Amino acid sequence: MNHSSHTDQAMQACIEACNHCHQVCLQTAMNHCLKTGGKHIEAEHFRLMMNCAEICQTSANFQLSSSHFSHRLCEVCAEVCEACAADCEKLGGMDECVEACEQCAESCRKMASAQH
Amino acid sequence: MNHSSHTDQAMQACIEACNHCHQVCLQTAMNHCLKTGGKHIEAEHFRLMMNCAEICQTSANFQLSSSHFSHRLCEVCAEVCEACAADCEKLGGMDECVEACEQCAESCRKMASAQH
Amino acid sequence: MNHSSHTDQAMQACIEACNHCHQVCLQTAMNHCLKTGGKHIEAEHFRLMMNCAEICQTSANFQLSSSHFSHRLCEVCAEVCEACAADCEKLGGMDECVEACEQCAESCRKMASAQH
Amino acid sequence: MNHSSHTDQAMQACIEACNHCHQVCLQTAMNHCLKTGGKHIEAEHFRLMMNCAEICQTSANFQLSSSHFSHRLCEVCAEVCEACAADCEKLGGMDECVEACEQCAESCRKMASAQH
Repeated sequence: MNHSSHTDQAMQACIEACNHCHQVCLQTAMNHCLKTGGKHIEAEHFRLMMNCAEICQTSANFQLSSSHFSHRLCEVCAEVCEACAADCEKLGGMDECVEACEQCAESCRKMASAQH
Repeated sequence: MNHSSHTDQAMQACIEACNHCHQVCLQTAMNHCLKTGGKHIEAEHFRLMMNCAEICQTSANFQLSSSHFSHRLCEVCAEVCEACAADCEKLGGMDECVEACEQCAESCRKMASAQH
Repeated sequence: MNHSSHTDQAMQACIEACNHCHQVCLQTAMNHCLKTGGKHIEAEHFRLMMNCAEICQTSANFQLSSSHFSHRLCEVCAEVCEACAADCEKLGGMDECVEACEQCAESCRKMASAQH
Repeated sequence: MNHSSHTDQAMQACIEACNHCHQVCLQTAMNHCLKTGGKHIEAEHFRLMMNCAEICQTSANFQLSSSHFSHRLCEVCAEVCEACAADCEKLGGMDECVEACEQCAESCRKMASAQH
């Protein structure tokens, strides 16, 4: 495999990870968290879920449009995903979110360092 | 004033109304509603606030890009804004949101009928 | 299968179709169309591609958040996808886009009628 | 004026700058650039315009939701705005875009350093 197609595969994987994380965070926040209440709708947690959903969407869109700034978005996206994963783990009962955030963070870290 | 510049002015006013409503709904939901709790974070109300913020953003973006489908987005945007205004009025203490939603709904109704 | 889980499956399929169509339209417009030039970057065609990408994103987000207005977004999304599919078919060499738009339009039509 | 209200004013100004830059870049790209053609629709320039519009939107949304990551988004937003301003200046005839991007970059730089 040449360098270019390897990069393409890594980026496509990162787009999928961002997209999956966007879906899981948005769907969980707007359904599970709102219905469960309590700590799930405390400002800090809920904001993090919504911010994570949005940065994942933007990060995917930058990569889809082959932006030169994709690695910068991936870097910030990884930070938000890591914070969201940690917060969801602390809260408990959010396994799907934790996994999606961790996977997205890992994929974004790779892209962030690869494209420098 | 010729027809074209009249249309442009009406559209620019609608873009501003959508944008203002997007800002007020998002800022209020993610700050006032999350902090106040109670009925402000019941699923139905909170969803409506977030949906209203998003459709206003999309409606503005369609108009900014001169989409042929702007009037269709404006139509749906007006419906969501009217529902959000009514829900915020029922809840009380949400005057800025009520006003922003009503103003955006009115502006979107005009655009929806003008562009048919 | 009960009614509820059937609805959930149909909505999940529509979210996937919207998401796929968003990705294909955005990636194709910002890479293939910009590189190919000519008719691919004529205002009408390019706008339709970008509008289609955005409405698919919004339609998916409304469904992910269980919005009561999902069927209204799906209705408009179907219209934009059908227009985009027709325009891409006329242009030629856009088979992936045509297929993604047609599949998304069909899925959105189902959701639009099911949720009334 | 106390620290908190000063911060609020600076953030509100940055939200407005991001929002204005989003509007100008999107509207210019999807109208002026597509109609003018030539260098205005070369991939690098057009992408930068669209990426700038999107990051400004996301940066505004993070600030509107009082995200702890607002300063990180502002940092990346400033970089994209600076690149877009430089590219628009080189191209010529894009004064409104240059001004909006420079103003947004300056406002975002302030927020990025203030919130550390």
